[in-house]
Amino acid sequence: MQQIISEVERVVAQILGDVETKGEMPKQPVKSVILHTIERLQHVLFPGVFESGNIHGASYKSRLSVMLEEVANDLVAQIALALRYDARYVNSRQEEVDSAALDLTCKFISKIPAVKEILDTDIESVYNGDPAAYCKAEIIISYPGIYAVMVYRLAHELYLLSVPLIPRIMSEHAHSVTGIDVHPGAAIGKYFFMDHGTGIVIGETTVIGNHVKIYQGVTLGALSTSGGQNLKGVKRHPTINDNVTVYSGASILGGSTVIGEGVVVGGNAFVVKSVPENTRVSVKNPELQYKNNSNVSAYVELDQMAFWAYDI
Amino acid sequence: MQQIISEVERVVAQILGDVETKGEMPKQPVKSVILHTIERLQHVLFPGVFESGNIHGASYKSRLSVMLEEVANDLVAQIALALRYDARYVNSRQEEVDSAALDLTCKFISKIPAVKEILDTDIESVYNGDPAAYCKAEIIISYPGIYAVMVYRLAHELYLLSVPLIPRIMSEHAHSVTGIDVHPGAAIGKYFFMDHGTGIVIGETTVIGNHVKIYQGVTLGALSTSGGQNLKGVKRHPTINDNVTVYSGASILGGSTVIGEGVVVGGNAFVVKSVPENTRVSVKNPELQYKNNSNVSAYVELDQMAFWAYDI
Amino acid sequence: MQQIISEVERVVAQILGDVETKGEMPKQPVKSVILHTIERLQHVLFPGVFESGNIHGASYKSRLSVMLEEVANDLVAQIALALRYDARYVNSRQEEVDSAALDLTCKFISKIPAVKEILDTDIESVYNGDPAAYCKAEIIISYPGIYAVMVYRLAHELYLLSVPLIPRIMSEHAHSVTGIDVHPGAAIGKYFFMDHGTGIVIGETTVIGNHVKIYQGVTLGALSTSGGQNLKGVKRHPTINDNVTVYSGASILGGSTVIGEGVVVGGNAFVVKSVPENTRVSVKNPELQYKNNSNVSAYVELDQMAFWAYDI
Repeated sequence: MQQIISEVERVVAQILGDVETKGEMPKQPVKSVILHTIERLQHVLFPGVFESGNIHGASYKSRLSVMLEEVANDLVAQIALALRYDARYVNSRQEEVDSAALDLTCKFISKIPAVKEILDTDIESVYNGDPAAYCKAEIIISYPGIYAVMVYRLAHELYLLSVPLIPRIMSEHAHSVTGIDVHPGAAIGKYFFMDHGTGIVIGETTVIGNHVKIYQGVTLGALSTSGGQNLKGVKRHPTINDNVTVYSGASILGGSTVIGEGVVVGGNAFVVKSVPENTRVSVKNPELQYKNNSNVSAYVELDQMAFWAYDI
Repeated sequence: MQQIISEVERVVAQILGDVETKGEMPKQPVKSVILHTIERLQHVLFPGVFESGNIHGASYKSRLSVMLEEVANDLVAQIALALRYDARYVNSRQEEVDSAALDLTCKFISKIPAVKEILDTDIESVYNGDPAAYCKAEIIISYPGIYAVMVYRLAHELYLLSVPLIPRIMSEHAHSVTGIDVHPGAAIGKYFFMDHGTGIVIGETTVIGNHVKIYQGVTLGALSTSGGQNLKGVKRHPTINDNVTVYSGASILGGSTVIGEGVVVGGNAFVVKSVPENTRVSVKNPELQYKNNSNVSAYVELDQMAFWAYDI
Repeated sequence: MQQIISEVERVVAQILGDVETKGEMPKQPVKSVILHTIERLQHVLFPGVFESGNIHGASYKSRLSVMLEEVANDLVAQIALALRYDARYVNSRQEEVDSAALDLTCKFISKIPAVKEILDTDIESVYNGDPAAYCKAEIIISYPGIYAVMVYRLAHELYLLSVPLIPRIMSEHAHSVTGIDVHPGAAIGKYFFMDHGTGIVIGETTVIGNHVKIYQGVTLGALSTSGGQNLKGVKRHPTINDNVTVYSGASILGGSTVIGEGVVVGGNAFVVKSVPENTRVSVKNPELQYKNNSNVSAYVELDQMAFWAYDI
């Protein structure tokens, strides 16, 4: 194994050297701690749903308090680390950073009941909108759209408090778990329902009203970001008003695109300008062609196949 | 930290009060236990594939028996919890519920060899259909389509036994792991192959024959569920007969839509009525336009860009 | 519970019998060990980013060396198991296999600094291309596209060394975590950026140049694989030259399809032949139809709805 040991020495030296030459970044918030925070907040938001055992009586209440207090303490530490990425705190004394972190954590904790209240409206809309939904417990435990919106609503509160890094770490974790990519900067109203969800992308400056329902593969995006960092802060994503439904695979793009109240956007529609209220937008029924199937091999017919069949 | 402690007290009191006012749900099955059950069933279904060590001889046999016995005991407890969500058991005596759970668990365990047999046909079809497949071990260990169909076939057995909640918790876990969303209610034949799989959605009342292959982003869905809970039980999703291939991004919709034997559905096709056997359905080769590229900035050309370029 | 115990005995006997009749596969690499390897390599590639604590000074250097040495030892064992799936080693003496595994591991470890160097270019391109990116730490910690490309670049090195099974286990793990499916056989240049990423599929024989950016839902695929195992090794997937951008939902298909330098492929475009350099390819602005919304029920209007609205 001597061969390996010397190889290891060489590689580590090279990598750490590389780190030194590039200069040290400030310490980051610790991802694993933040994920553990989300998990405990889920217990607090839905008491008893993720554990067996009686959820009433003093013992449970204390357990919940202890859990939330641990969350708060972890957040103070993580936010203190994150604030070092905020220009205003790069050179601040540690005491300043710590007391700012404490203050932000309190503000965040105080929002939890409001977050729970709006999450209850999201669950309500799933139950009313999905024939396959068995009961609310099933929705809370198993629906990816509910997990994604829960994490979004928590991350959004931290985003509103201008906490760096942590909101995005939270939302990308939900993205990984659900395939739903909601930027914590988006503003989303009550009774929000994402069905199936895989492939949904909702951009940073999107604004969504109440009672909006969107399906798998929907993009609420920007027309282009070739401007890169210069576009930071610019409203690049659409505004969706109340009672809008967007069916799967549709894309709605552009910061000045406004979808009026009561609009229904059909599957795979590609919308880049505003739509007046109570309108249905849809792709004209896409023409299909039918051919009788002859079983010649993939080789012979690649050319014809090109236009209808593909895979990896 | 006094500031935080009092905030925590306030929030917990508010949330638990909130729970009391909304009334207590019966205790739910515990998600973590159910996920652990899936993991252990995977070991039982594919002996030795997920562990090192000799898989023959008495010691391994006993290890497997112990593992499956633990699964069975956990399932009895979890099914007993789930049955409280079945109208027929809401007010039953605990003994009744427990013996029903025991009975259902036995019925489920007895199905495992049949599940393994059909899973072997699924693995067979992957190996024969995918040039990138190296060997069956690789397929079992790494193919998301196989993991999703394994969890589906297990969850489907519980669904057929009318066990509440647990089948959906299982299938949404597979959805989270693979991006493939197969409702446990769907009926799927032998030699089923989902390639790549991300974004596949298969609805509750879908019926699929043998030797069917579908690709990433395929939706087998309903035309509309605005009926909500009133549509419960109605056949809302299509029927796919034997030897059908559906290429990526295609959607096949509606409870009365029947795709005949030997049909090939092309990529991105949007099919809402039945297709006769041995037919190829495809989108007419979508017209493309080509422009020479001038490097003006994203700002100037948003309007033209609108029609060809977008992102977040 | 006697009922269950006998059922368990029966099932285990049947399954193990089934294994014996089908003959024993050689032992596989252990998935959990390989995933742990990826996790530790992530620490080595980005020192300090996933842990708190000072990343300079001797103690950290030793910790990193110990970690990488453990990775190397685990890899020797896992590669030795995997080599049994390589025709050349099926009947080799264990010593031969072990020394081959040791040699391959050393070659792999020696590539790590080069992998880090190219990953730094990928991170650079994300930072420059995404207005929502806050800082490089956020990108490393939270961007799925970076996680997927990191795992791809590691798996690709093992693929180049012809190690069986392990590269695909790694890439399918990244697929599960990110929804991005990059086959370890693909050849991908510097400054590669996958934005959002969910649903991206990149096939085994794809070739990608430098400074390429692709979005969610893009498929770089084959025209057909009905040839199955006969197509193994054939170039089935496209070639993408430098400075190409492919917007979301686009598909580029076929082993002889070459996308020229500087090309921009529009959203949802379906490209099956080569495109000359500095060209923009896009779907003709898809015609939309607008209807005023009347609130009749889902039942009455299924037919009209068929063409514009669907879900599950």
